[in-house]
Amino acid sequence: MNMQNNLVNTIQHCEAVCEHMTTLVHCLPNLHLRVAQMRLLRDCADICSLTAKYIARGSNFARHAAHLCAMICEACANECLRFPDHHSQHCAQVCLHCAQQCRAFAMMPMGEMMMPMGEMMPPMGEMMMPMNL
Amino acid sequence: MNMQNNLVNTIQHCEAVCEHMTTLVHCLPNLHLRVAQMRLLRDCADICSLTAKYIARGSNFARHAAHLCAMICEACANECLRFPDHHSQHCAQVCLHCAQQCRAFAMMPMGEMMMPMGEMMPPMGEMMMPMNL
Amino acid sequence: MNMQNNLVNTIQHCEAVCEHMTTLVHCLPNLHLRVAQMRLLRDCADICSLTAKYIARGSNFARHAAHLCAMICEACANECLRFPDHHSQHCAQVCLHCAQQCRAFAMMPMGEMMMPMGEMMPPMGEMMMPMNL
Amino acid sequence: MNMQNNLVNTIQHCEAVCEHMTTLVHCLPNLHLRVAQMRLLRDCADICSLTAKYIARGSNFARHAAHLCAMICEACANECLRFPDHHSQHCAQVCLHCAQQCRAFAMMPMGEMMMPMGEMMPPMGEMMMPMNL
Repeated sequence: MNMQNNLVNTIQHCEAVCEHMTTLVHCLPNLHLRVAQMRLLRDCADICSLTAKYIARGSNFARHAAHLCAMICEACANECLRFPDHHSQHCAQVCLHCAQQCRAFAMMPMGEMMMPMGEMMPPMGEMMMPMNL
Repeated sequence: MNMQNNLVNTIQHCEAVCEHMTTLVHCLPNLHLRVAQMRLLRDCADICSLTAKYIARGSNFARHAAHLCAMICEACANECLRFPDHHSQHCAQVCLHCAQQCRAFAMMPMGEMMMPMGEMMPPMGEMMMPMNL
Repeated sequence: MNMQNNLVNTIQHCEAVCEHMTTLVHCLPNLHLRVAQMRLLRDCADICSLTAKYIARGSNFARHAAHLCAMICEACANECLRFPDHHSQHCAQVCLHCAQQCRAFAMMPMGEMMMPMGEMMPPMGEMMMPMNL
Repeated sequence: MNMQNNLVNTIQHCEAVCEHMTTLVHCLPNLHLRVAQMRLLRDCADICSLTAKYIARGSNFARHAAHLCAMICEACANECLRFPDHHSQHCAQVCLHCAQQCRAFAMMPMGEMMMPMGEMMPPMGEMMMPMNL
């Protein structure tokens, strides 16, 4: 498994967690104190979606997207950290992990970035385990 | 791990594979014979993106999106199956698997569909393994 | 100007209004009474985004997307109509208009649907008026 | 009509034109000479989608997205300019116009950026002209 596949997984996971977290926040009694959190979750999910796409397709702008993604994930994590509930704390960790991985990718020298063709495609035998991207 | 998390992973994987496959197709010598494939890969990646979002956020329209996603994944798989190269064959299998899972979800009785709150959020200890959504 | 260009504009307008409306809702004092509205605005913006893409690219699944888009726009409109403020009422009208146009498109016989090549591209002289798609 | 509404329209128009142009390119005989163009059209459509969303919702990261959008629109325009056909030339102009507007927005002092509440929402009477965002 190569680095880009892990990275795409990490970013897509962050997107899904932010989408889910938004719905969780909607159910909380202190909703009016969480407007900044809702806004950042939405922004975070959307930049994750774009960044995962760019990396998966090997875009020349993948590193630029990852740089912006890291910034927004970090802002979202910092907002989530302000709330003591388990879900916000967990979401913060997911966002921070994503931010770190995106930042590392964004600063990588170009030569190491090339995704070997076919690495995104596991051999057929692994097909029933769709998680092993 | 519950069913919806697996399903979100399956759909996001399909999206990433279609995005990557599009770039692979661009490098092939018989590009002009693969226009339908390119078009379907693009449509497939985009409906996967929407469907994963809807399921992750517990949208009331998640099943409708999954129904359309199944239809497009299947069309994309059938086109990919026409080409003998390994990548097209693998992409077809990923799309077919996604189509099956989406169809099963779309036809599930409402009562079984509720995502238990927090299931999208693994306990902190698992945080370093972002694949285990 | 042909019908599909108007339709793409209508759907993109609806997406932008729903995105903006979500931010407006966040600023309102009765936020906790508007959870369903926030959820539907989010779903509506995202299906509009997909549907506009499919129509602009002439996807074979454009009508299927438009059908789902009409359904979600209508649900969003009905929820917005429950609130007497000007913005909710206006957003409802935008969503209803979009729903009507999407439904008409989804039910159109195939022969009338073909977008004449180049219609999306106005002659150069009109270039400074980017709104006249 | 305020500046941000025009900008959202300009960016959404660019997205639609790039989506449409991709389909046009697929029909051209010299497809294999246009791989870079296809890749850039795809990247351009997707960053336009994100940027329009961020601006419409008044995201704190709207200017960052607009900065990246300007860069990608410009790259796409430069590639399109290499081809003499009418559609590529027109698409280049649309992308260049979008790049200019995004760059101006990205460099605007924060104070001028605030979108007056409700500006995205024209009075009801204008509702039948969905272009006047």
